[in-house]
Amino acid sequence: MTTSNIHIVKTYLLDLQERLCQLLEKEDGRARFHEDCWERPEGGGGRTRVLAQGALFEQAGVNFSHVQGAALPPSATAQRPELAGRVFQAAGVSLVVHPLNPFVPTAHCNVRYLEAQKPEAPPVWWFGGGFDLTPYYGFEEDVKHWHRTAKRACDAFGEDYYPRFKKWCDDYFFLKHRREPRGVGGLFFDDLNEKGFEHCFRFSQSVGDHFLAAYLPIVQRRKALVWGERERDFQLYRRGRYVEFNLVYDRGTLFGLQSGGRTESILMSLPPLVKWRYDWKPEPGSPEAKLYEEFLPPRDWLLS
Amino acid sequence: MTTSNIHIVKTYLLDLQERLCQLLEKEDGRARFHEDCWERPEGGGGRTRVLAQGALFEQAGVNFSHVQGAALPPSATAQRPELAGRVFQAAGVSLVVHPLNPFVPTAHCNVRYLEAQKPEAPPVWWFGGGFDLTPYYGFEEDVKHWHRTAKRACDAFGEDYYPRFKKWCDDYFFLKHRREPRGVGGLFFDDLNEKGFEHCFRFSQSVGDHFLAAYLPIVQRRKALVWGERERDFQLYRRGRYVEFNLVYDRGTLFGLQSGGRTESILMSLPPLVKWRYDWKPEPGSPEAKLYEEFLPPRDWLLS
Repeated sequence: MTTSNIHIVKTYLLDLQERLCQLLEKEDGRARFHEDCWERPEGGGGRTRVLAQGALFEQAGVNFSHVQGAALPPSATAQRPELAGRVFQAAGVSLVVHPLNPFVPTAHCNVRYLEAQKPEAPPVWWFGGGFDLTPYYGFEEDVKHWHRTAKRACDAFGEDYYPRFKKWCDDYFFLKHRREPRGVGGLFFDDLNEKGFEHCFRFSQSVGDHFLAAYLPIVQRRKALVWGERERDFQLYRRGRYVEFNLVYDRGTLFGLQSGGRTESILMSLPPLVKWRYDWKPEPGSPEAKLYEEFLPPRDWLLS
Repeated sequence: MTTSNIHIVKTYLLDLQERLCQLLEKEDGRARFHEDCWERPEGGGGRTRVLAQGALFEQAGVNFSHVQGAALPPSATAQRPELAGRVFQAAGVSLVVHPLNPFVPTAHCNVRYLEAQKPEAPPVWWFGGGFDLTPYYGFEEDVKHWHRTAKRACDAFGEDYYPRFKKWCDDYFFLKHRREPRGVGGLFFDDLNEKGFEHCFRFSQSVGDHFLAAYLPIVQRRKALVWGERERDFQLYRRGRYVEFNLVYDRGTLFGLQSGGRTESILMSLPPLVKWRYDWKPEPGSPEAKLYEEFLPPRDWLLS
C-alpha cells in the first residue's frame, strides 16, 4: 500500500459525526448542537459540535478532526515507540455525553485512524477506538445490554475481538492512583492493522455504528427516573474521576494537547460541573456503595 | 555531609503546618481543620488537615508528609535526571486555599526537602517550594503587596533570589495547552542546594514563614466584598484551569501520584466545585476580561 486511505476514512467519520449529532439532538428534544469549524496553523483542522444545557444532556460533544503533524507524539502509539517522531496524519471522531439525570450514565465513543510516514518507506497505518460507559447508579440490565451490543459490534470480525477489546477497555480506563476503574467498560482497541485495511476499517465502522444502539436504549429507560440532591451530588463527585482520568491518563487527551490540538475541542470531554470532596466514602449498603462494589470491578457482563 | 538533615527539617515543617492551620482557622472564624494521620505501606506517612465549608474558605488543605521510597520518580528532579531511581526521602508541607468569595484569590504554598541516596556515595539533598496567587478578579494593590512580601522573603538570601524565583514561578505555573499563566505568580524554586544546607534551609523557612504575611492582608481586604452569581460562575470556571494545571503539569501532584502517595492528600488541592464551559470567552471590557489582559500576563509587580 503506497497511497493514503485517509480520504475514505474521513468520509465515514464526517458521516458518523452527522448521524450521532442528529440522533442525540432528537433524543434530547430541546437543545441543538452548536458547530465550530477550525483550522490548525500546523495543518488540518476539525469540526466541533457541542450541545449544552439540553433537557436530557447537560453537555454532549461530538468532535471530528483531521490533523497533520511533523512529528508523531509518543502518546499516539504506546505499542510502537519506534514510530514517534514521524510525519503523521490522524483523523477521528470523539463523543462524550454528560447527561443531567444522574441515573443516566455518561458515555464515550471514539473512532480514530492514523498514518505515519517516513521518506522511502511505506506508510504505517492503524485504527483505534471503542466505546465505554460510566454510570453513577448501576443497573445490571443496562450494563448487560451495553456489553451485548459491544459483542455484536465485534462478532463478524473475530471471535477473540470482544473478549480482547473488552479486557483492554477494563485495563485502559483505570485510575491507577485510586486503583479504581472509571466505569463499566465496553470496548477499547488501538494499533489495529491486522488482516488488512478493509477489515480494520469495517470493524472500526462497526464500532462507531453500534454506539447509539448500545447507548440510546439505556438513556430511554432511565431518563424519566426522578432524582434529587443526593443523586446529583454523587454524580458531580463521580464526575471528578472522569476529569482525573482524562487529564492524567487518557491517550487521546494527551495526544491532542501534545500535538498542539485545539484545546477547547479536546477538553469538551470534561463535565460542565464537577465536585471534589476530601476523603469521601459512600455509606455501606447504599446505592452509591453498590456502584463501587458491584459495578466498577471488572466482570463478565455476558453471563446471564 | 554524611548524616541526614531530615529530622530538623521535619520539625520545622510540622510547626509550620500547625501555625498555618491555626491562623487560617482564626481567620475563617467558623470551620475547623479536620486531621488525618496516615501511613504508607512503602514507608513514611503524613498528617493531612482539611477545613471544609468555612465562612470564608470553601476548602483549605494543609498537608504534611514524609515519605521514603526505593526509587526516586523522574518528576522529582527535572534538572538532575541522573538521580531518578535512587532511594529517597521527601518531606514537605503543601497548602491550598480555595475561598468562597470570588474576590478573594486562591493561594498555594509549598516547602519541600528531598534526599536521594545511593550506596557508597554521599546523599544528595535539595529544597524546593514557593508560593503563588490565583485571583479571579484582579486588584493591583493586592498583587503588589503579594510580590513585595515575596521579595521580602528573599532579600536576606541573595539579590538575585526574588527575580530568579519570580521568573521561575511565571514559567512554571503556565498552562502550555492554553498558553495561559495560572495566576499572578509569586515564588517558585526547586533543586536548591547552593551555599550549603543552613543557607537553603533558612531560605526555605523564610518562604514558609512569609506566606501568611503575603496572603492574609489580601483576604482581609476582600472578604467583605459582595459577590453574586456572575462572580461565582467566573470563579468556578477559572477553577477549571487550576484543575487542568494540577493534573496535567504539576510536579508535586505527579510526584505524589507516581510515588504511590496518598491520593486524597494529594488531590485535596483540587477545588470543591468546578465548571467547564466549551469555548467561553469573557466579554471585552468586562472585569473578567481584565483578569486575562492585565493580571495574567507576567509583569514586574514591584514597579510603583
